[in-house]
Amino acid sequence: MPKPPRSDRPSRPGSRPGRHQPGGSGIWLYGTHAVLAAVANPARRIRRLAAAEGARERLQAAAATAPLARPAVEACERRALEALLPPGAVHQGMAALAAPLPELSLQDLLDRLKDDGRRVRLVVLDQATDPRNVGAVIRSAAAFSAAAVLTQDRHAPSATGALVKAAAGGLERVPLVAVVNLARALRALQEAGFCCIGLDAEAELTLAALPRADRVALVLGSEGRGLRRLVRESCDTLARIPIATDSESLNLSAAAAIALYELAREAGDDG
Amino acid sequence: MPKPPRSDRPSRPGSRPGRHQPGGSGIWLYGTHAVLAAVANPARRIRRLAAAEGARERLQAAAATAPLARPAVEACERRALEALLPPGAVHQGMAALAAPLPELSLQDLLDRLKDDGRRVRLVVLDQATDPRNVGAVIRSAAAFSAAAVLTQDRHAPSATGALVKAAAGGLERVPLVAVVNLARALRALQEAGFCCIGLDAEAELTLAALPRADRVALVLGSEGRGLRRLVRESCDTLARIPIATDSESLNLSAAAAIALYELAREAGDDG
Repeated sequence: MPKPPRSDRPSRPGSRPGRHQPGGSGIWLYGTHAVLAAVANPARRIRRLAAAEGARERLQAAAATAPLARPAVEACERRALEALLPPGAVHQGMAALAAPLPELSLQDLLDRLKDDGRRVRLVVLDQATDPRNVGAVIRSAAAFSAAAVLTQDRHAPSATGALVKAAAGGLERVPLVAVVNLARALRALQEAGFCCIGLDAEAELTLAALPRADRVALVLGSEGRGLRRLVRESCDTLARIPIATDSESLNLSAAAAIALYELAREAGDDG
Repeated sequence: MPKPPRSDRPSRPGSRPGRHQPGGSGIWLYGTHAVLAAVANPARRIRRLAAAEGARERLQAAAATAPLARPAVEACERRALEALLPPGAVHQGMAALAAPLPELSLQDLLDRLKDDGRRVRLVVLDQATDPRNVGAVIRSAAAFSAAAVLTQDRHAPSATGALVKAAAGGLERVPLVAVVNLARALRALQEAGFCCIGLDAEAELTLAALPRADRVALVLGSEGRGLRRLVRESCDTLARIPIATDSESLNLSAAAAIALYELAREAGDDG
């Protein structure tokens, strides 16, 4: 069998394929939600679509009704599909070779939000390294209409297969914004009117007890280590999610989901 | 190299090693939280402890202060540790070959809770199949002091490595109770005074809007398919977590975390 061209090889989480090569290699996305949402996203360029028996018709139907012309769906044996993807990828029978989404800078994001008079929520992740965790946060951010998820470039996983799969389509609507320096980004957010709330298990006040602001950036640290000192000190306030005192901690994505829910709840969205 | 004895081979998620063979094969647990919590749990029998450079001292210290005598910590190269575990296991440098925890039946659980006059929370999972998801639910259940997580035997992943790792120590405190028939289990819970609340995206009322009960069983379906009809009809009431209407859905573990938080919040635990 001929070796696949370089651009068709699976991208591993952690690598940054094509980040600075717009015409270069793509990212294999997989999983029903992730692939269907990518196909439906007019901002997402897709080079190949592949599906195994059982998932093919659904993918064909999605491609046929997509806002952009999409490549024909290649019929694959499951094993051939798996050969395109990282080991253990839960593909649910479908995959797409896609170009990365256009990068959005913090300034682009703030410009976009400038005239947004309504409530705006952002999630800021300090040193989150597990792509599945970051993907799960993006999924919850989409569920609670957050405007973006911010990570620090140097520590963050890139938007490849495992992250996109865990985001379950959320990445097509909630941009992942990589910044060079998180403390500096928090200052820029504050200048743009955001209240930066750091989640900290040791905080005196609970998130529910805090007065609400229209513009909130939730800042979450890595599991175990929490927020780095400089990041913590850059927040306007700290708050905790009350949990059992003998319990270790919440999973990062559970904490993010609860915090986003709490902020939406307080805003009276829970009609 | 000699082949390891059968009982020392890694247990794969999905298999049920030693379920009915108390003296038989054990389960390799891995990951810092999971292993340290198992070592500290007097109900958990441990046959071997292994640690790589960097994690060894921490595991030795935990073993030395454990409530039961624990085996000496074997020093391992990382590669040798990995050879004991399923491919891709995130072991963080430590592993324990443990006996499964004693099984708890629904009747045992209800007997245990009989004289518990306080608020009791249970989580019931209908057809949850991903061990990481079930583990993450157990972790949140521990954080919000739920008394147990119930699954249906036939569909549920067993308490092996990936599940125990995701539970991050939670399984040592929150029992995973397997029942034969979930609808029948819900009736037994109702007879024991539990209000069974099924989470359903189509429900009219939000969880926050429901009147509270002292004894609540939260019933969650699989992602995508939701609750099976018979399970849904066996609930006392249905409720939803309000999310953006254009959003696909919440991850199962995010939904469980939010629901447990909401119930704790209402109870005024968030001082």
